[in-house]
Amino acid sequence: MKPPAAPIEHPALHQRVAESFERQGMMRHLQASILRVAPGEVELWLPYSDKVTQQQDGFHGGAMGALADIAAGYAGLTTAPEGMEVATAEYKINFLAGQRGGALRAIGRVIKSGKRLIVTQAEVLHVAGDGKITPCAVMQQTLAVVPKNY
Amino acid sequence: MKPPAAPIEHPALHQRVAESFERQGMMRHLQASILRVAPGEVELWLPYSDKVTQQQDGFHGGAMGALADIAAGYAGLTTAPEGMEVATAEYKINFLAGQRGGALRAIGRVIKSGKRLIVTQAEVLHVAGDGKITPCAVMQQTLAVVPKNY
Amino acid sequence: MKPPAAPIEHPALHQRVAESFERQGMMRHLQASILRVAPGEVELWLPYSDKVTQQQDGFHGGAMGALADIAAGYAGLTTAPEGMEVATAEYKINFLAGQRGGALRAIGRVIKSGKRLIVTQAEVLHVAGDGKITPCAVMQQTLAVVPKNY
Amino acid sequence: MKPPAAPIEHPALHQRVAESFERQGMMRHLQASILRVAPGEVELWLPYSDKVTQQQDGFHGGAMGALADIAAGYAGLTTAPEGMEVATAEYKINFLAGQRGGALRAIGRVIKSGKRLIVTQAEVLHVAGDGKITPCAVMQQTLAVVPKNY
Repeated sequence: MKPPAAPIEHPALHQRVAESFERQGMMRHLQASILRVAPGEVELWLPYSDKVTQQQDGFHGGAMGALADIAAGYAGLTTAPEGMEVATAEYKINFLAGQRGGALRAIGRVIKSGKRLIVTQAEVLHVAGDGKITPCAVMQQTLAVVPKNY
Repeated sequence: MKPPAAPIEHPALHQRVAESFERQGMMRHLQASILRVAPGEVELWLPYSDKVTQQQDGFHGGAMGALADIAAGYAGLTTAPEGMEVATAEYKINFLAGQRGGALRAIGRVIKSGKRLIVTQAEVLHVAGDGKITPCAVMQQTLAVVPKNY
Repeated sequence: MKPPAAPIEHPALHQRVAESFERQGMMRHLQASILRVAPGEVELWLPYSDKVTQQQDGFHGGAMGALADIAAGYAGLTTAPEGMEVATAEYKINFLAGQRGGALRAIGRVIKSGKRLIVTQAEVLHVAGDGKITPCAVMQQTLAVVPKNY
Repeated sequence: MKPPAAPIEHPALHQRVAESFERQGMMRHLQASILRVAPGEVELWLPYSDKVTQQQDGFHGGAMGALADIAAGYAGLTTAPEGMEVATAEYKINFLAGQRGGALRAIGRVIKSGKRLIVTQAEVLHVAGDGKITPCAVMQQTLAVVPKNY
C-alpha cells in the first residue's frame, strides 16, 4: 500500500531527517518512508509485506516498535541543536490491536526537549486498504542528545 | 556470523517454540534463529547484515527490540498451558551500547508466570567476531496469555 | 494549597471512584483529593507538604508516580464493568521537571479499554501558588480488569 | 516490623547515600530505612503501616514504586563521581503480587554506569512476619548524572 502523497512543509527540517533516515538499512529494507516532518513532529509509513509479519500474519510488534522508536526519535531530532543528533536511551510501548494488510502510520511527538534529554511519545495507527484507521500502539521514549559523528 | 551449534535440550518445548517462530516472516527475513529453549528461558540469535542497521551502520534499536521481545515472549510461551499462546501487552527496553558486525544474542527469562499475565525480562548481548561479548540492551515485558487460534 | 472548587459532573461515577479512593491509607495520609471524574478521565490533587519531599525539598518522584498511577487507574475504573475493579499491572513514568511548593495535579486518561486489559496515560502538572502550570511527568500504564473483592 | 540488624560494609559509600536519604521528607515520613550500601547496590526497608496502604489494605503500588525508585537511584549514586548526584529520568515497574503486613525490602542494582546516564534494575520483596519472602515488583530505570547542588 502506497503512502499518501504529501507536500514537504519544512524543507530544511525534512532534509535533516531524510539524510539520517536514508542511511538506515533496516528501514530501507522494510520499505518505510517519511510522510511528514514538522518542528517536534514526524510521521512515518510502513507498508504491509511478508518482511514485517509475526506468527499470525499480522504486523510484527517488532516492526511497530521500530517504527514508533524512529518516528519519535526523528521528532526529537527536529528540536536538537545543529551538529547534534539523538540516540534512543529507552522506550516503552503498549500494543493495542493486531492488524494485517494495509500499512502502519507512526506519529512521533516531542513532549519536552531539554539540553541533554528529550522526552517523546508516539502513536502507531493501522491504515486499512479502505482507509479505515485503527490505533495499534502507544509509545513513550527518552532520547539522549549526542554529538553527530557521521 | 553463524550461531554456535547447540544440542536441543527440551525437544517438546523446543518444538512448541519453533512452530511459532518459523511462522514469523520478519524473523525469517532478518535471518534470526533459535539457540536454546528451556522451561522459562529462550535464547535467540540475529546475525549482522544490512537488513538490521541504523544510520551509523550499527545494529538498529528496532532489531534489538524485536529480538528481545520475541526471546522473552517465547520464554513466556514455555510456561503457558497447552492450547494457549502469549501476546505481548507491552515492553520497555533500555539500550546500553551500540555495536556493528558479529551477531546479537537475546536471552529471555520468565520472572512470574500467572494465569492471565506473564512478566519477563530479557538481555541482549553483542557477540563480536572474536567472541567478545558486550551487553547491548535490557528489557522488561508483560505478556497476556490468550487462546491459540492458528 | 487547597484544590480548586469543582462541581461533581458524574455523580454515580464519582461515587464509584471515591468509594475506593477513600480506602487508600496512603492517599489520605498524603492529603490527596479527587478533582474530577468523567468517563475515561480522572483528575487528582496533591498539595505540597513535608510528607512528599525528596532530598532537595522538591516533590518526590515517588509521590508523582503514585498520583499518576492512581489517576490513570481510576480513569480505567470508570470504564470497567460493574462488579469489577482494576489492578495496576505495570506503569512507566518520565520525569520532566522538579518543583516545590504549590500542588500537583494528575490527569489520567483511558487510551484503550479492553475486557481484560486497559491501557492508560497520565500527565502530572505542577500548580504554583500564583497559578503557573508546569508539566512535571508523563506516564503510560497497563491495568488488569479483576473481580472486586471488598 | 523492624529491619534486620546489619553491619555497615562500606562506611564512606553508606555515608554518601545516608546523607541524601535522610533529607527525603517522604521516606522519613513513611519510616523507610537503609539496610545495605555496596558499590552499585543498595537495599532499603519499608515497614507496613496505614501510611502505605491502598484500598484493600495491601501495600500501595505507589509505595513500592517509590522504594524501588530510590533503592535503584542510590545504587546509581554509589557509582557516580564525587560532586555529582543522580536524578531519575524515568522508570518502569511491574507489579507481581500484593501483600499486607510485614515489610518491603527493595534491592537496587546498577546495570550500566555511564558518564551521563546510568541504567539500573530493582526488585521489591515482601517479608512477612514469619520471614517468608515473596517477590512483589521488578523495576527498570534510567538515571541522569547531574551536578550536586545542595
